[in-house]
Amino acid sequence: MIQYNIALIGFGGVNRALAQMIAENNDRWNAELGLRLNIVAVTDLHLGSVISPNGIDARLLVETKFARGGFAQLSGGSAEADNEKVIKQAPADIVVEATFTNPVDGEPAISHCRWALETGKHVVTTNKGPVALAAPELKSLAARHGVKFEYEGAVMSGTPVIRMAQRTLAGAGLHGFEGILNGTSNFVLGRMEGGLGLEESIKEAQDLGYAEADPTADVEGHDVRLKVVILANELLGGKLTPQDVACNGISGLTAADIDAAAREGYRWKLIGSASVSGDGGIAARVAPQRLPLDHPLAAVGGAVNAISFKTDLLGAVTVTGPGAGRVETAYALLSDIIAIHQSRPSANKKEAA
Amino acid sequence: MIQYNIALIGFGGVNRALAQMIAENNDRWNAELGLRLNIVAVTDLHLGSVISPNGIDARLLVETKFARGGFAQLSGGSAEADNEKVIKQAPADIVVEATFTNPVDGEPAISHCRWALETGKHVVTTNKGPVALAAPELKSLAARHGVKFEYEGAVMSGTPVIRMAQRTLAGAGLHGFEGILNGTSNFVLGRMEGGLGLEESIKEAQDLGYAEADPTADVEGHDVRLKVVILANELLGGKLTPQDVACNGISGLTAADIDAAAREGYRWKLIGSASVSGDGGIAARVAPQRLPLDHPLAAVGGAVNAISFKTDLLGAVTVTGPGAGRVETAYALLSDIIAIHQSRPSANKKEAA
Repeated sequence: MIQYNIALIGFGGVNRALAQMIAENNDRWNAELGLRLNIVAVTDLHLGSVISPNGIDARLLVETKFARGGFAQLSGGSAEADNEKVIKQAPADIVVEATFTNPVDGEPAISHCRWALETGKHVVTTNKGPVALAAPELKSLAARHGVKFEYEGAVMSGTPVIRMAQRTLAGAGLHGFEGILNGTSNFVLGRMEGGLGLEESIKEAQDLGYAEADPTADVEGHDVRLKVVILANELLGGKLTPQDVACNGISGLTAADIDAAAREGYRWKLIGSASVSGDGGIAARVAPQRLPLDHPLAAVGGAVNAISFKTDLLGAVTVTGPGAGRVETAYALLSDIIAIHQSRPSANKKEAA
Repeated sequence: MIQYNIALIGFGGVNRALAQMIAENNDRWNAELGLRLNIVAVTDLHLGSVISPNGIDARLLVETKFARGGFAQLSGGSAEADNEKVIKQAPADIVVEATFTNPVDGEPAISHCRWALETGKHVVTTNKGPVALAAPELKSLAARHGVKFEYEGAVMSGTPVIRMAQRTLAGAGLHGFEGILNGTSNFVLGRMEGGLGLEESIKEAQDLGYAEADPTADVEGHDVRLKVVILANELLGGKLTPQDVACNGISGLTAADIDAAAREGYRWKLIGSASVSGDGGIAARVAPQRLPLDHPLAAVGGAVNAISFKTDLLGAVTVTGPGAGRVETAYALLSDIIAIHQSRPSANKKEAA
């Protein structure tokens, strides 16, 4: 059994869900996977920060109703979220970065990742910013320090699309993908097919907790664009920035467009796609597309996400699953930690023995 | 770069497609994956057998029109398919077993696997028989001899469902699955929805090359039953035999059943499923089921296959892809070989260095 000390950066819904999983499943993970997780530090903008080298009780952390600055009441705690100090000084093996995504410059998440990698700590993150905007730098930092930088949750929460493409489709000749990568806009399109207008549909998505108060990033395709950048760069060897990806959202679609498509046997979906072109370059875009009903993505309804990988040897292989949710996204972090665990130098040796 | 010597057992469509891939892609695999494949032996019931320690030109093997017993014309060749001698004596690292599936006793494929593992050779196979009927014995043999037994292609050809569930969904709490695991029967159901009768639909599937001359295994669910046994045992820790799985095919469905479902917003699919029950046992069956149109498997049309994994942490994750085809199934063999390559004891060390 290996115990990993982890530092949680950000204590919102996702890292809280991870702490809850740790409280409930450490014994099972020990038995099934040979690992345990021990939370040695937490920081949060509102709650403060705490370093506890012997470990913080995960259940206590989840169940206590902390007030603003409330981590100060814990041994080793402070009312301030001193992220830099915690990331650099906590005795963590793995830093779990789950702060909010800043789509413009990726900060402060990029600095969080940099500080962790520079001090020899693995990083797992669900944050699109560092992956879309700084992956080359962070990967090279990780390699230099002999640690891992893992980010399965940056695209479809816990649905393992990056790892599936990289590991289980190795050698299949992946040359492109198209995906429904934003659950909110897909939900909105479904409600518009049901007869609601755009505004009403967005309102319903907000009431159900799918859409943010400002739905622009979902509706205008900006969220999908970051995911397309990540997938094109990770899976197709691209070097794209968000500016390289033409982006149109669904706000231009009218009820008449939706109706016309339905009458003609089509369905509108917001599709993020990329493909390797003849000269080895990559063409990537985000745009609403009219899909025929027998297209693998046409039947993907509600807030579900899906991605269809285009391969030389298998044709299309499509994965459908959750693209959001606290628990689902926390599982992405767990899956990254499991990947780190299984790729440790001694792992295969043990298996082979 | 590592070169693997391989022995092809059976030289029908699948292993021919693998040989073709080797002829075309060895240089690319070397660059991208760090491996090359070298065919050192081939056996085939009709063509004979050949052992060539220095390697047989893959292109020559694919392009030559051999007559019955024609391997005798090759250096080291014989008109007889001496499988036992070839498997035991050829200087192969990996034995590629792709003979036909005998669903009753799994022979001669089980013996082929046994001979290979006993003589310290890895086995990769697309054959359901050895996996459904003898996996515990063969896995234990493999472990004892320090080699791998891999069989991704036994369920959905190259669509990587076993490896996806075992590797990329580790820790997600997989507790069941349901799948469309036979393309022929799914194609037939689609044609019946289009108004054809059962017999006509089967005839069309035969004309298109989807169905065998004797379509019983496809239509009556026997093929799906073997796949359910494999998945339940591999992914859910079961110890099922085919007799443990209640099995009904689609031959009892009438045009009236199909029409009634369509009118009521449902669609018939032949579903293979298994789930862990409260007491830890496994309930598995094969049966036609009426799925609501928003079910993740309802839209899977034509000869495509799909499986929906049920997990505690992610809910349903569904993979849709090919379930048959020469090239697709040959890719499964390649993916098994890549998995063996990537799990060699020195692999992670190199990566970490």
